[in-house]
Amino acid sequence: MIKKVNFEDTTICACATGNNISAISVIRISGPDDISIVAKIFKPKKDIPLSEVPGYTVLYGIIPKRNGVRLDDVIVTFYRAPHSYTGEDSAEISCHGSPYIVSEIISMLIDNGAVYAQGGDFTKRAFLNGKMDLVQAEAVGDLILSETEAAHDVAMRQMRGAFSKELSQMREKLLKIVSLLELELDFSEEEVEFTDRKELRELLENSCEHINELISSFKVGNAIKNGVPVAIVGSTNTGKSTLLNALVGEDRAIVSPHAGTTRDTIEDVINLEGVLFRFIDTAGIRSTLEAIEIIGIERTFYKIKQAQIVLLMLDGTRKEEFKESLNALSRKINSEEQTLIILINKCDQHAILPASETDDAVIGNIESIFNATDLIEEVRTLSSVINLYPSAILPISARQGLGLDALRSTLVESQKNMQSAGEMVLVNNMRHYSALKDAFNALLRANIALGEQVPTDLVAQDIREALYSIGTIVGEISTDEVLGNIFKNFCIGK
Amino acid sequence: MIKKVNFEDTTICACATGNNISAISVIRISGPDDISIVAKIFKPKKDIPLSEVPGYTVLYGIIPKRNGVRLDDVIVTFYRAPHSYTGEDSAEISCHGSPYIVSEIISMLIDNGAVYAQGGDFTKRAFLNGKMDLVQAEAVGDLILSETEAAHDVAMRQMRGAFSKELSQMREKLLKIVSLLELELDFSEEEVEFTDRKELRELLENSCEHINELISSFKVGNAIKNGVPVAIVGSTNTGKSTLLNALVGEDRAIVSPHAGTTRDTIEDVINLEGVLFRFIDTAGIRSTLEAIEIIGIERTFYKIKQAQIVLLMLDGTRKEEFKESLNALSRKINSEEQTLIILINKCDQHAILPASETDDAVIGNIESIFNATDLIEEVRTLSSVINLYPSAILPISARQGLGLDALRSTLVESQKNMQSAGEMVLVNNMRHYSALKDAFNALLRANIALGEQVPTDLVAQDIREALYSIGTIVGEISTDEVLGNIFKNFCIGK
Repeated sequence: MIKKVNFEDTTICACATGNNISAISVIRISGPDDISIVAKIFKPKKDIPLSEVPGYTVLYGIIPKRNGVRLDDVIVTFYRAPHSYTGEDSAEISCHGSPYIVSEIISMLIDNGAVYAQGGDFTKRAFLNGKMDLVQAEAVGDLILSETEAAHDVAMRQMRGAFSKELSQMREKLLKIVSLLELELDFSEEEVEFTDRKELRELLENSCEHINELISSFKVGNAIKNGVPVAIVGSTNTGKSTLLNALVGEDRAIVSPHAGTTRDTIEDVINLEGVLFRFIDTAGIRSTLEAIEIIGIERTFYKIKQAQIVLLMLDGTRKEEFKESLNALSRKINSEEQTLIILINKCDQHAILPASETDDAVIGNIESIFNATDLIEEVRTLSSVINLYPSAILPISARQGLGLDALRSTLVESQKNMQSAGEMVLVNNMRHYSALKDAFNALLRANIALGEQVPTDLVAQDIREALYSIGTIVGEISTDEVLGNIFKNFCIGK
Repeated sequence: MIKKVNFEDTTICACATGNNISAISVIRISGPDDISIVAKIFKPKKDIPLSEVPGYTVLYGIIPKRNGVRLDDVIVTFYRAPHSYTGEDSAEISCHGSPYIVSEIISMLIDNGAVYAQGGDFTKRAFLNGKMDLVQAEAVGDLILSETEAAHDVAMRQMRGAFSKELSQMREKLLKIVSLLELELDFSEEEVEFTDRKELRELLENSCEHINELISSFKVGNAIKNGVPVAIVGSTNTGKSTLLNALVGEDRAIVSPHAGTTRDTIEDVINLEGVLFRFIDTAGIRSTLEAIEIIGIERTFYKIKQAQIVLLMLDGTRKEEFKESLNALSRKINSEEQTLIILINKCDQHAILPASETDDAVIGNIESIFNATDLIEEVRTLSSVINLYPSAILPISARQGLGLDALRSTLVESQKNMQSAGEMVLVNNMRHYSALKDAFNALLRANIALGEQVPTDLVAQDIREALYSIGTIVGEISTDEVLGNIFKNFCIGK
């Protein structure tokens, strides 16, 4: 299905293990001249003509420098087209993990005709050679960046083709519809209707529903990949930064920014029991709630709207502000779709603890220790008056790190059912999400058009548009620009 | 020769490519249960009993998670004892370079009986299994950290056994002497002298000379490995830090601290045309030269003494201080062994340049541009009066980055002949250096004793001591502690 393009007759090379000091580094080479280039720099211990070496052969040998001195002892693994990652002749040179040796080997490969690979070039070749579709290629990148079991599972399922298969089934259905419509069109002068319009509308509605399910799954898919968006809001000096530092300090995740996601800035991400939480850059939110009402409103509202969880921070020593803060938030939060957790901070100052009870505080029974029952009651009452129903009201001391375990549990608990995707296909990629939306809108138009007796050719065109959008997802239709954008964020050597 | 110890019957595993996000990660396993542990987690595509797989076999397959979901597609390369790096059954699992996947695979290996390897464990096994001696094992670590051609050549030569061979020849010579002496001892009551004492002293002197050559080579070997030591000295506010930042900013080397070298703190190292220069931590030197005369003298003198190159920084706008600075330094520098470069800084302030001439400055002809000829002359005159002969006097502007190319060339030029070791064996390891010194001293004592008609058994004991010291170098004699110290700085997975 994918057009096999002889897009390049170059042979590419790159270090695939990151150019750091380590025990072993692996240099990858792929392309038509793979064997002949490797043969120029590598002297196997057994004197074997490399051109005759079958795939999956491992040879030990040396790479001498230009002056004849030994550069390194290496192990080279050969793969022959089409049984390789890229579908081309390939080789992997395993050398000592020294940046000096790696750069020498790569420069020798380049001197002998190889080209230094850009990020994702190997996977791009795998795609262009029909070894995988675009969804699978993108999943390779996601797989490498996966940091939790859930993210790994979603990426692995996509890499193995589950999403592609769904798209292909949908495509077949739509193709059937469109071909019926076009057949009708050919005989239009005879005013024949081959298609049962009712059945056709059912088919369309069914497809719309399926696409809509996939679109809806993006919220979960994106949260799994990039972290559940959490906004911390509250007036000045309630201790928002202190809380963030305390949380992030211990559990900072190593997630790198993914391409094409909703995330536009680097944010603090923490990994709690295998669930990623992403704290939205809240420059606006961190200012006072009162200020929200005056300036930067749009931006801050947008941030709150993006969040799946809103943490409202109250200062336990400033009871007089509770009502105003709750009121300000209540107008912005969507209590059906968002989880609200209210934190009453500085509870250690609200009631100084007798020293003997400090141990209890550590094990989490801090509500009574803090003597915060009255504060909690007050917040609960104020909230219910304005129809705000927080899923938890927690007394904490961000500075002393007390009460944070309860917060962590509440955060994890709120995602318990969300993140177990089971065998369901989840959309986790902004590009796919956007293409699905386009397809959905086109099918909606088609459906309405069918109902309104719009000429058949216009209906067919809408469905063709949907097909086009779906085609862009797996890469049946793609441009250099699209491919460039997809692969530019891949690791070098992948 | 090396005692083959069944030191452990464990099977070790570790990631050998650094646990970073990359295209590929390689996990290494080695030990008696290698095959059976791998067989428990790896399902090859071809259904082959792994126990029958010969060495140098590559298999494609999958590693499923405990719940049966695919964790990753992997390529496993098998090595069979003794034809592996460690000399044991070994395997390398090549998976996607995802920290999550790597940690899952490693934890599965551990669950099935493998032990997580400490840094250098694989190379330690190679040593203990007689695959290499200790000098060669240490050279593996040096090789990985090598950042220049010279450092790489020294490490590679040692890894290939050139140094070990010299030591072994020396050892044979000394063993011959000592066995002759001991034979004499057996017949001591008969007052027979089997050995021609004159020939024996010649042999000893010859060995001393050889060891002394090796000891002397440490200066070059260490400079190649750790960088040529450069001290920047000068009064306060002459711009020493500005210069260091300007130099280091562009060319910072990535060398990590080696174990057992003369280097005791992390220092700024730059790589200029393949030569490393190491700027000695000059907390003392950076204070005023005047202060050197009063406090911190010992420490600062030691720093200057360590340096192979001394950069004296003068402030071109404070001519009145020239004489004093030169005088202070002249008493500390060893002009026969150390290279002195005098920098006249702030030359841009000494003579404001006409704008039209700025271009010339960039191409390096800044002496005349700066109108610094008078300053240079003055410094030259003042220097020669006190028998100080700098190899260069350079006008610079550290802040504007002018004149630095001339400085770089002068630095590189000063090492041109130093760093071409040719085929000579260079000692580059403090442990070896120290053991050679011990051996040398023992042989000196033996030689003197021979001249003074000291009893034969005492002479023999001195030579045995020298043999012992030499034996520790290649590891014929070693303790757990010594091995621990050597391997603790190796990468995990090496």
